[in-house]
This record gives sequence, C-alpha cells and structure tokens, in this order.
Amino acid sequence: MSERPHLAAALALVGQPGSRQAIPTPAAVLDLDAFEANLALMAERARAAGLALRPHAKSHKSAWIARRQMEGGAVGVCCAKLAEAEALAAAGIGAILVTSPIAGQANAARAARLAGELQDFRIVVDHADGVAELAATGQAMQVLIDVDVGLGRTGVHSADQAADVARAILRHPRLRLLGVQGYGGHWQHMQGANARAAAVADGMARLSAAIAAIREAGGQVEVVTGGGTGTFAADMAQGVLTEVQPGSYAFMDREYRDALGADPDGAFRQALCVATTVISANHPKWVTVDAGLKALSTDGPAPVPATPGFETASFRFFGDEHGMLSRPEGRQVGRGERTDLVPGHIDPTIDRHDVLWLVRGDVLEGMIPVEGRGASQ
Amino acid sequence: MSERPHLAAALALVGQPGSRQAIPTPAAVLDLDAFEANLALMAERARAAGLALRPHAKSHKSAWIARRQMEGGAVGVCCAKLAEAEALAAAGIGAILVTSPIAGQANAARAARLAGELQDFRIVVDHADGVAELAATGQAMQVLIDVDVGLGRTGVHSADQAADVARAILRHPRLRLLGVQGYGGHWQHMQGANARAAAVADGMARLSAAIAAIREAGGQVEVVTGGGTGTFAADMAQGVLTEVQPGSYAFMDREYRDALGADPDGAFRQALCVATTVISANHPKWVTVDAGLKALSTDGPAPVPATPGFETASFRFFGDEHGMLSRPEGRQVGRGERTDLVPGHIDPTIDRHDVLWLVRGDVLEGMIPVEGRGASQ
Repeated sequence: MSERPHLAAALALVGQPGSRQAIPTPAAVLDLDAFEANLALMAERARAAGLALRPHAKSHKSAWIARRQMEGGAVGVCCAKLAEAEALAAAGIGAILVTSPIAGQANAARAARLAGELQDFRIVVDHADGVAELAATGQAMQVLIDVDVGLGRTGVHSADQAADVARAILRHPRLRLLGVQGYGGHWQHMQGANARAAAVADGMARLSAAIAAIREAGGQVEVVTGGGTGTFAADMAQGVLTEVQPGSYAFMDREYRDALGADPDGAFRQALCVATTVISANHPKWVTVDAGLKALSTDGPAPVPATPGFETASFRFFGDEHGMLSRPEGRQVGRGERTDLVPGHIDPTIDRHDVLWLVRGDVLEGMIPVEGRGASQ
Repeated sequence: MSERPHLAAALALVGQPGSRQAIPTPAAVLDLDAFEANLALMAERARAAGLALRPHAKSHKSAWIARRQMEGGAVGVCCAKLAEAEALAAAGIGAILVTSPIAGQANAARAARLAGELQDFRIVVDHADGVAELAATGQAMQVLIDVDVGLGRTGVHSADQAADVARAILRHPRLRLLGVQGYGGHWQHMQGANARAAAVADGMARLSAAIAAIREAGGQVEVVTGGGTGTFAADMAQGVLTEVQPGSYAFMDREYRDALGADPDGAFRQALCVATTVISANHPKWVTVDAGLKALSTDGPAPVPATPGFETASFRFFGDEHGMLSRPEGRQVGRGERTDLVPGHIDPTIDRHDVLWLVRGDVLEGMIPVEGRGASQ
C-alpha cells in the first residue's frame, strides 16, 4: 500500500481527539465499543449453551479480528475458501475449518499444505471423489462431511450419500473423520424467530439422519458444526450442533437488522459503517457522496445513513464510485460534510475494502489489513 | 501476495498448451486476441473522428492496460478517484485526468502532490470552494470544469455556475483552466442508437451553453472531454467533444452487449470472463460453481455462461462465494469442470479481483496486477 500516502497521513493522528474525521473516505470504520460488546455477547451465549464457537471469517477476513475472537474463547475460525484460509494462516491464525468443498488435485494439494503447516486444519467434503483427491496427497488431514440441510448449495444430498462418503473416508487411514457440517444459509435472513426455528428444525432432522447413517457405516461424529448469526437462538435450542459458525454478529448490517428486529438474536449492535464525504452539492434535491457500488454491497437492501441529522435522508447508488443522498429535512448539507452509512450486507461490503479503521467514539485508534480481501480462490 | 502460493503454481505453466486450465478459480481471465482487437478498433475510430482518446481506467485499474492503451495512441487515461490515480502513478503512468471533483484540504494536497510529480495531471472542479482548496495548496495545476449534462451526479448545474467557477479559476495564476468535462453516465446503457443520440444531443447543448458562458467570462476552453463506450457513435457525430473517455470497450460485459446489440457501437468483443469451477454436483437440477457475489458484479444483469456446451445453462448467485448453474440440456456436468461467465457489469467485477490472467486461446501468457483495486478514496 506504499502508493497510498493518504493512509499514512490519517494514521499519524491516531489517538488525537476528532481524528476519526481524518480517515480518508470511503472507509470501512469499526466502532470498537460496539464490536467488543458483540464479541462478548456471542461468546457468552455460546458458553451458556455449551457450544464451541468458531466464528466465520468470511465476514471479516482479518487476522486481527480472528485473534480477538479466539482470545475471547473461540476454538478457531471458519474460512469459505482455501485462499481465505491461506491468507489468515500466513498472518498467524492456526485453527481453521474450510467450510466449502473443493475440487481438483491442485486444490487438494493446497489443502494438504495447510494441513501440514497449521496446528488444527479441517476441511469439508461432500463426495467420494473429493475424498479420493484429498487422500491422494498422502497428507494426514481432518475432514468433516458437509450435509445439505435444505439450501442445495453444497453437501451430501441424502443419508445414503453421507454413508458412502463416510466409508470412503474410513478407507484412508491418513484421513480422520471428525464429524459433519450443516449450514442453512437460506434461513439466516428469514423474518421472525418462529419461522427461523421451524426451518432449522427441518434442517436439523436431515442432519440427524445423516449422522445416524454415518455412525451406522462405522464413522465417528464428534463435531456437528453449522449455524449463523440469524439462527443462533434456534441453533442452540435444537441440541444437534456442537459448534456454531456465526460471522456477521461482529459487525451487523441492515439485512440482519431488518430480519432480526427485536428478536433475541437482534441484540447485536451496528459496529461497522462506511464513512463517506459529500463531494458535490450543486443539486437542489440531493448531494453526491464518494461511496458507490465499489465501496458498498449491492446484493442486499440499500445502505442507510447513520449519522445524526441525516435520519430523513435516503441513499441510492449513483454509479461505481458515488452515492446519491437525498437532502435531509431541516438541515443544509454542503461539500466536504461526512456521513456514515450502515451497509446493506456486511460480508461483501468488507470484501470491497483493503483495510478497516478502528475508532472509539471520535478517536481513531488504528488500522488493520483485511488480509483475505479478494481471496475467493 | 506471498500468501497465495496457487498463483505461483499457475504462473510456472505460462506458455504451455492447455495452461489456461491451471488458472485458480474464480479468476478474471483476459482473452488477449479480443482485447487487442477492441483496443485497435477504438483507437482507429477516435483517430478517424479526429478526437483525442483518453480511456477511463476505472474499468481496468491496471497500469499494464493503461500502457497498452497509450502505446496505441491514447493521450493518457482517466481515473475516478485520487487513490486510483495514485496507484497508477506509482506504477508509472504519467498522464492522468481525475474525473470526479474532490472535497477538503487533505484531498487537495493529494491532488497537488500528483500535479507536482506527474508529467500531465489534470483534475475537474465543480464549485468555487473546490477551486479555493486547490489554489490554497500553492501548486501549479491543470483544471477542467465539470459540467452536469443531465446525470445530476457532479458538475456545475447551470451556465451561470460554470462562469462563476471559471472566474474563480482565473483569479489564481497557478491554476490553468484547460476546458470542460461533460459525462452522461445515464446514457451509456440506453437501448438503441437513436435514443442514445437524442440524449447525447440534449446533453451536448447544455455543455455548449456552459462553454459559451466560460468563454464569456474570459476562460479558454481547449479541451472538451466526456463520452463512453455506449455513446461513442453519438459522441463523435455531435462535434462538441475534443476528447473521449470510453472504458468498458476494452473488455465488454452483458449490460453493454444487451444495450448495444447490433449497433455500430456493439462491434467490441467480449474479452474478459470470470473462470469458475464446479465444486459440488450432488443436486439433480443444478451444480454449484466457486464464483459468487465476491467474484462478480451484482448491480447489473446476471452473468451468463460463455463456455461451449453451457449455452442452455443459467447462472444465479448462491451466496458470497458460490453460484448456482442450472444443468445444461443434453450434457452431464461433474465436479471439477470449468466454465467461463460473462460478467453482468465489467467495472465492479474487475474491482473484485487482485489480478487479471492473460490468455491467448488455451495458453496462459501471464498475470497482471489490478493496482487500483479497492482504490476508491
């Protein structure tokens, strides 16, 4: 980042009152008070439920945050892809579960390298051919069987297939079957705790059937991992999971806020916003800010202004690099004014940023790299 | 990128037959034959129209591509933001126009630094306060007045305001007024050449009025810059612009293909695709590929499969890191198979990737960094 002198200029002000205003925008800004409260709350809920906590790093992609989570009692983190795991491993994170199946011998070799280097590396498989690819590396490896609990994205499709994959694993003495994964991504944003609980119950029944078939085939199932920020209460209540994988709780976003509302799962605070600056204010009805679809997710609901005085303003995307902010009622807004936006969907928003800026109140406390940004391979 | 060993593994195969298949996916893959044809076609059209060509680097964010464009006759490139310009400047690009106004003294200082270091740096302003900020740096600088031609995003809002800003510039001997910019982003994807031509005509009338007011105020207007891939034919026909700023033509995407169709502006070839791999094929109706909303733009139309044999398959986003590809008719698709996708919107798609892979036919020829990726500040 040597070509980005504006980062150094802001960092020179760390600790000074008002230094938050010096962060170059658009910027992903993490409110440490809210973030720490979110981490403590999830850790406490998992502890109270007797579940291992393995937060999903696809949300933050940051070794600093992974370390904070593990210092708070997390057993490790999840990564969505090998490259994300490689990035966090290079930054010192030693306990990683890769939650997507991989395909091909070149990728199996990458998994083997991680298994050889990390203290505790785990990866899911959902097909006997994937088992064969991992086994062909000759590397000792811990594996879990990914079970489709209704999403249809990855995972074995039936209890019979779960047993097939288990038998394939058991044929290879260097592969150790740890258990199963069942993740219902489609449940996370359902409106209402009851709807989410019913969906989770159906998925957990599928997962239980797969577990029974694997045990029948001679496999051990010590770990049952899954769940997310949206279904945490239901995940705990069902009693099937031994480990939960929430990610977004650390930051929150508009999509989760809309879905969770006043549910018990909605107690997490908005910890990450995208700070923006008004760069043009010539139009009578709106101003233009410097954050567009390269700085904020576009797949979820629209971002919403979070800064006091902007409650009546609404945001629309205005191309790659700009946003249209309607002029708030009863307030003049001019060039150079800053406003924070609550992202629609947090995970892809963070993936748009190389760094997160750490603030406490109005004081800049530091900057951390998003090591896994763009690491989708 | 030292933490990404898979990149080195693929690069070891450069020049070997079939090495394209070794690129780790999801990957932004540039077909050099199509890319070179697109560059040559746009350069020839600009030359024939007697217009300077200054391609917009917000599409590619790559110094290697900027250099190829300039070797083909471009006078320089455009950048959307200061950080994008800083990234390309650090990689050796010496002629850059920043096409968005900036706000604040810290950003004016960054512009001054670029003006002092680059061979030919230019930036737009759209308010007298912005002029004052640039002037306060004390650095000699070339500026253009950004004129709103109907988009309402940035730019002076009237001919009177254009004259005001011109007078503000003329008061500062170290600021040199080069001319004006008028960019109609909202015209670029209009369906049909006639509709685009009518919209451009209206915008060019506004631009001409601003030019007249600036000249009336004593300002010179040597450069009239604007235009894009979608309106290139109309831009040329109107006779107002002296310089054009197309960006997407180098790559193309589904959005431009849908809008331009068989128009003369539609002669550019699809040069960039996102290569994906099937990582799970357990479902009877679809397979899951490894590219999701962190690898492809989500703001435009859905990506479409480009690989022969997948013509009848359709793509849907399946979360952050995955895509759902319906099973094509008359063809089995299994784990590990690769297929290319035409992105919906090219600029934000490239911004999701750290590198572009260069191929000719089935042969990998190299990899280039996307230096400006994430540089929205």
